[in-house]
Amino acid sequence: MTPFQTIGIVHSCFKEKFGIPRQPRMIPEATGVLKLLDLPEMRDAVRGLEEFSHLWVIYIFHGHKNVLGPEPADWKSLIRPPRLGGTKKVGVFASRSPHRPNPIGISAVKLDRIDLAATGGIELHLSGLDLLDQTPVIDIKPYVSYADSIPEAETSWATDPPRQLPVEFSPEALSECERIAREEIPGFNQLVKKMIALDPRPAFQAQRGAQGPQTAEQSYAARIHHFDVHWTLQQSQGQEALGNERCRVTRILAL
Amino acid sequence: MTPFQTIGIVHSCFKEKFGIPRQPRMIPEATGVLKLLDLPEMRDAVRGLEEFSHLWVIYIFHGHKNVLGPEPADWKSLIRPPRLGGTKKVGVFASRSPHRPNPIGISAVKLDRIDLAATGGIELHLSGLDLLDQTPVIDIKPYVSYADSIPEAETSWATDPPRQLPVEFSPEALSECERIAREEIPGFNQLVKKMIALDPRPAFQAQRGAQGPQTAEQSYAARIHHFDVHWTLQQSQGQEALGNERCRVTRILAL
Repeated sequence: MTPFQTIGIVHSCFKEKFGIPRQPRMIPEATGVLKLLDLPEMRDAVRGLEEFSHLWVIYIFHGHKNVLGPEPADWKSLIRPPRLGGTKKVGVFASRSPHRPNPIGISAVKLDRIDLAATGGIELHLSGLDLLDQTPVIDIKPYVSYADSIPEAETSWATDPPRQLPVEFSPEALSECERIAREEIPGFNQLVKKMIALDPRPAFQAQRGAQGPQTAEQSYAARIHHFDVHWTLQQSQGQEALGNERCRVTRILAL
Repeated sequence: MTPFQTIGIVHSCFKEKFGIPRQPRMIPEATGVLKLLDLPEMRDAVRGLEEFSHLWVIYIFHGHKNVLGPEPADWKSLIRPPRLGGTKKVGVFASRSPHRPNPIGISAVKLDRIDLAATGGIELHLSGLDLLDQTPVIDIKPYVSYADSIPEAETSWATDPPRQLPVEFSPEALSECERIAREEIPGFNQLVKKMIALDPRPAFQAQRGAQGPQTAEQSYAARIHHFDVHWTLQQSQGQEALGNERCRVTRILAL
């Protein structure tokens, strides 16, 4: 067993697991700050990092039960990828599931700027995040295209970005979203729209329409920044359901 | 501090640090086997992995002093990247140096095949390796192009693959290389040539010609598979030296 030190903590717009996109850079408006430990050597450690547009964040999946579990038994060898509709099992090593023997994640995200003068520790301002708030980070590496970029890699069922559902807003929700984007959080309306369009439901829920009534409407909520975003999803039954799902943002509540 | 479990060990063609390419996939002939722990759940854990052409290996830099060092002081905040000639310091987080606060590496390598029937544990046969023999692995993830491939990322000084030096063989070395490639290790001659062409010398040595005599010849050796490969590098002095360096493989000795 190898012990690792946390080098910093991510303060993310995603305050709970539900709603987080399943890969990085799906939502450019998903922002956060990696706050490094307040150590004098950190100023040197990030020197030159600003010359890279993207970086790898290597982190701990801290929102999962298997975290810190010292026994190898605390993991699942088979998982059901949402992209396969939750109906097919694949090996955990053939997936990016957080339920891994070692709960390590890697995400290539955009580095917007570095604030060396921030109080309490240097801040890396990031976007395109897929990280839960308070994620402990154990390493940062520059993204190096010639080593890391393999556009032609064959990737089985994970070839294309996930499909996106149509999203509409209630008049009240739209008005509130636009106010927030204008006054508090630039891009907030796009963040909400894209988060919901990516359909954050667990795969087993996304499939449930087929066993339910002809048309089912479900309500969901997710906490983003300091808001609770509520939406409904109307789903039709059976094969013809694909393309008939519609999302509607109903309310935005400040916390 | 988070403890991690080793899930397997890499048996690599690179038996010592010297000679290892500084990024993965520089040498397709650089092969190895990731031997997973001999646990019954591993068979499930790799199910479906064969549908991916490339995978991320997440591993421990075990060949470095800072490994297992419990104190944050066991790392360097500034390092000298070989690509910058060893003359300029950058922050460790702006580099892929192994001298990191947490000695974690990530390498995207090619998955050639999976041997489920191997005795003593499942084997993943890999190529394009940049890993030292006996490297402990803590995670495997499929390479997913839409999430991991950012060809347009701006990467400062690390934009292009490293330059390659011309390599020639002594008649004896060439004959031995070709015999090994034919009888023992397919591609061995290409492996040797590309390893040397990538100039594995530490940056401070690669710069030394400028302070030495007009023309310097240095001898080197590196252990690859079960052979010691010897070569010389002839280097001219000063600015005009670039492009005047020549490598010559002199001997291949079986161990």
